[in-house]
Parts: sequence; structure tokens; C-alpha cells
Amino acid sequence: MSTDTNADADDESTSNCGASSSTAETEAETASSGSKCGASSSGSDGSSGSKCGGSSSDATDSSGSKCGASNSSSDDSSNEQEVGATIEDFDADPGQLLAVGLGPGHPEGMTQRAKDALFEADHIVGYTTYIELIPDEITEQADDIYDTPMCGEVSRTEESIDRALAGNDVAIVGSGDPNVYALAGLALEILESKGATASMVDFEVIPGVPAAQSCGARLGAPLVNDTVSVSLSDHLVPMPEIESRLHSVASENFTITIYNPWSRKRRENFQKACEILLTHREPDTPVGIVHGAGREDEQVMITELAELEELGEHEIIDMTTTIVVGTEDTYVWDDRMVTPRGYETKYDY
Amino acid sequence: MSTDTNADADDESTSNCGASSSTAETEAETASSGSKCGASSSGSDGSSGSKCGGSSSDATDSSGSKCGASNSSSDDSSNEQEVGATIEDFDADPGQLLAVGLGPGHPEGMTQRAKDALFEADHIVGYTTYIELIPDEITEQADDIYDTPMCGEVSRTEESIDRALAGNDVAIVGSGDPNVYALAGLALEILESKGATASMVDFEVIPGVPAAQSCGARLGAPLVNDTVSVSLSDHLVPMPEIESRLHSVASENFTITIYNPWSRKRRENFQKACEILLTHREPDTPVGIVHGAGREDEQVMITELAELEELGEHEIIDMTTTIVVGTEDTYVWDDRMVTPRGYETKYDY
Repeated sequence: MSTDTNADADDESTSNCGASSSTAETEAETASSGSKCGASSSGSDGSSGSKCGGSSSDATDSSGSKCGASNSSSDDSSNEQEVGATIEDFDADPGQLLAVGLGPGHPEGMTQRAKDALFEADHIVGYTTYIELIPDEITEQADDIYDTPMCGEVSRTEESIDRALAGNDVAIVGSGDPNVYALAGLALEILESKGATASMVDFEVIPGVPAAQSCGARLGAPLVNDTVSVSLSDHLVPMPEIESRLHSVASENFTITIYNPWSRKRRENFQKACEILLTHREPDTPVGIVHGAGREDEQVMITELAELEELGEHEIIDMTTTIVVGTEDTYVWDDRMVTPRGYETKYDY
Repeated sequence: MSTDTNADADDESTSNCGASSSTAETEAETASSGSKCGASSSGSDGSSGSKCGGSSSDATDSSGSKCGASNSSSDDSSNEQEVGATIEDFDADPGQLLAVGLGPGHPEGMTQRAKDALFEADHIVGYTTYIELIPDEITEQADDIYDTPMCGEVSRTEESIDRALAGNDVAIVGSGDPNVYALAGLALEILESKGATASMVDFEVIPGVPAAQSCGARLGAPLVNDTVSVSLSDHLVPMPEIESRLHSVASENFTITIYNPWSRKRRENFQKACEILLTHREPDTPVGIVHGAGREDEQVMITELAELEELGEHEIIDMTTTIVVGTEDTYVWDDRMVTPRGYETKYDY
């Protein structure tokens, strides 16, 4: 099993609309400039294959766990489990595994259900930036916090599964919603690969407020009609497929929410997306750009489609930014984007 | 200004994934059978035009307020304001207007930010079914609760704006997210029609967990790649436009979340949608159906696309149901829908 820090930048920035992703962006750049994720990622033995940063040598779970991780556990039984362990390697009655969505990134954006789930978890597993979003009163009562600042979500998700199979109640967290370019699916895929089942760990997804909603709210009301979400990251989806999807939805009157719009190594994806949008929509189509919604480094800009491509080089657009492209009906009023639902066709107000 | 109870059924069921919408569905049926929303909706004078159920006579604000409403206020200054009032009719310094998303419908699904916003509001305005979702400790401390069981969201939204312009801090609530087929846009449109501005009432949208996320979580991980949301209600969008959108996204590999799938008067829309989906996707494409996610009357079914149309006559599918149509990669494992994000193309696990 190998991981790639771009996957972090890809996955973990997408279900996100905040500064919490700046780190993910940093990772993308770090990865694209070829550095590895932590000293322990190099020179590890080949027994399992969790690694970071793209070297081709495998790594053990312990190196995976150490790989930039601030694992506070010293007596965690699951640490004796090898990564790549299958269900046969675990004797304990499995604990529960919850995929928990933290929402936009500030504690007030979490649901009570998400908070309760984290309070009940023995172990909380996540990307360091997201762990830091969790209120102290929650993290302080957990038996263990396993966070990895620079490693891929595949090894971290496997770690969370191994800990659940070892008998711990585990919450794996991410910002936004676990179903939006995030880890809910990966957890199920890895459970299956281990010969386990979702039922075995009472696997459950605790939904959160996705980036599209956090950013849509910040922009006003751009999303009240039919909408689509498209990620411009070609790390896991081929760019021709992304281009084809953009053509199909841009030619219809959907609001388009763009995740992962830009990174240094994906300039061309962004430029191509802007070209495709302009072949189907007017240059003055309103476009909302939100970086760090509701957070200290929040930046919000409402512009026109014709201006979007050149903004790719502006700091407001990176892998952590969410962009909302309006429909032909969308207009800007009092610094808000408004996409009429259609009431004006039926009501007089 | 006129309203139509179908609009309630349309709008208020869509940002919803729960039993809270059964009422909306009832409304749709009531409306389709032609009944009005409460005795006060008929025989009112013509001074303003808030009405329910589609009669062509206008109604005053007071009839609008009484129209099936359990308005507990007796001394509310905004009740002296006429519906159709413009900014010139208000002397007070405006209060704040917040559009608050309650999430899936159980109190634990609300964000802390939404709870705080409701605690701070002088008046809470909403569809009765949604008001009932709000914890008592919140509703009990509000100066006034204005809820309408059978009236349209246009009159209720105008009521919330008039109350804010009259100097009250007002929260208008809905389930799900205010940006998902909901009232955030209508509030801005009506504010503009009154000669007011969003800034004047510090208008803000407090996002919530949308139905797609609540239902996606209940189904497993169907939504982890690019997705679209389409409403089958042709109350505000012409059916040919809806059909064209369905063709465009079904021919690409999007997960498709369908809102407002079925009502007695919209059987044909559902049948047509099923036909369109089958022209682009395999008959065995996994389809998840969720009615009342996380609520007492919850029903969840995972089936195949070929079976979907006949289920339209089954109680599990009505205007309150959310349907998730998988991609060509989506599969069912251990009673969960899984749409691979694409990790399997890069990682060995």
C-alpha cells in the first residue's frame, strides 16, 4: 500500500472551506516539490507499505504511525497490529467505527451528534489540522488521539480500522461531510479488503455541513436550485473525465461548486475549467470565491466568470478554496449572489 | 402576492430528509385536491395578497398571519404592518434576519451555531413542522413564535422580513440547509422588492446539514465523488428543463440525488425521470431510497434502477423522500452503497 501527500491535499481540502486546509495546500506544494512527509518515512522496512511523499519503499505501521504523527498513545494494543492486518489478526471483540464530519471548521459549525460521537470515542483519528479543530474538552477525554500532519488518508484510515478491530471505539474525523470527497467510502473499501464488514464495527457516518453549504451561506443564496459539485483534482479522476462532466453541466443551468480548484501542479486544470465554463456561460456570469469561510483568514470575493482564470494566480484561490459558479439566472445584489428558485415566475412580490 | 401550498410541499420537503416532511407531503395532496389552507384563507379582503391554496382572491397580513397559524403574539408591532409593506412603512431601526438551517430534523443534527442563532432571536418564524423540531428550551425563551402549518413560504418569508424591519431580531427556519431548494434566496428577493437591503437587516445564512448528506450517511458512502442534486418538482422549474438536466448528468458519471421525487400529481415526472436514467445507466445501478432519515418513521431501501419506477407507488417514495442514484462504479456491500473515490486506482489495499 502506498500513499501520496497529494491525496491528503486532495481529499482533505475538499470537504473543507477553511483555513484548516492551508496545511493541506502546503502539503500539496510540498509534495509537488518532492519532499517526503517526515524523517520516519524514509529508510523504513518493507513489511507493510504505508509511506508518504512518494518514495517507492514500503513502511511498517509503526513507521506509518510515527510518520510525522503526534501519536500520544504508548499502550495502544492496536499499535501491535501490523498495517495490512486482516480480520484474522484481531482477537478482541471489535469496537465501533464512526466517520464524523466536523463541518466548516469552527466548533460552532459541528452538530451535536458529531460532538456526542467524539465524546464517546476511545480513539480519535484524523489529519492534524482537523484534530486541532476539535474542542479541547473533547480531545482531553479521549484515550488516544492519532493525528498525522503529513501522511496520506489511506494509512490513517487503515489505522482507524485496525484500532476498531482491536476493540476500540474509534472516530475518524474530517472537515465538512464524510461523504463529500472524503473518507466514508475509503473506510468501507479498506474494511472489505481486510475481510471485515461494516456491520462488524457498527460503521456509521455522522454527516456534517459540506463546504458547498458553508461557502454558499457566506455568498448569500447561490445554491437554491439544482446544483453540482465537481473537483478539479485529477489525482484520483482523469482530467478528460472531469472536463466532460464540466461540459455537460455547464451547458445546463446548474449552479456549479468547484472543489480543489488550483495548485501549482494543477494550473492547467483550472485554466481548462475556466475555458469550458466560458464556452457555455456568459462572461459576466457571477462567480463566488470563498477561502477560509468563517475563519480568521477568510477571504470572500464575488466576481465574473471572465475574471476567474487570472484569479488562479491570486492567493484567494488554492486547493482549499471553494468556487461557486452561478447559473444564467444568478445575479449579484447587495454583495450577495442570488440564484432565484423560480418563485418570481409564480408569485408577485 | 399569491402563494400556493404546493410551494410549501415543494420547498419545505426538499431541504429535508425526515418525517418532518410528511406534513409537507400531506399539504401537496391537500393542495392537489384543491382545498384551501384554513378558513381564514377565504373571504379575506383584497388589500395585500397573502393567500393559500390557490384561490385568486387576495388576503391581508392579518389573515395571512391567522391563516392556519398558531401565532402566539398579541402585542407584536409587526402585526400592525401590512403585508406588501415597503421599507418606508417602518420607523424602527431594523433588527437582524437570519435564515437558519436545522439539518436533518432531530435536534442533535443542528449545529451549535444554529442553536445559538435561535437562542438570540426575538422571533422565530417557520413552517409548523419545523418549529416543532426546535428544542423547547429555545422556543420557550423567544418573544414570539410565528408558525404556519398550511401557508406558503412566500407569505411566511415576507412576515419574517416585516418583523425584522420593524426592529425585531428574527430567525426564519427550515430543515436541511437554507441554500438547498429553500428560503435563503426568497428572503433576499423579497427584501429587494421592499426597497430594503440585506445589509439593512444584517441578513445572514446559517448553514445546516442538507438532506443529501443526511441520506447519504444513512446509505453508507454513495456521494464521495462528483455529485448533482435535481428536484423533480415542476412547480417552479419547467419539466422539460428538468428532463434536459437529467439527461446531461445521467450521461456522465455523477451520483444523482433526487429531491421531491413523487406526488400524486407528479407521477409522470417520476416515471419520466426513471426512463431518462435508464437510457444512460445500467438497470442494475444501485439506488438508495431514504424516507425520514434518523427519525421514527425512517425507511431505508437499497434497490436497483430497474426497480425504481414501480416503487413510485410504494409508501417509501413521496415528496419527502430523497433518492440517491449511484454511478457506474457504485456497488452495494454489507447493505451499504459505496461509490469509490478512485483510491483503488492509486493504492494497493
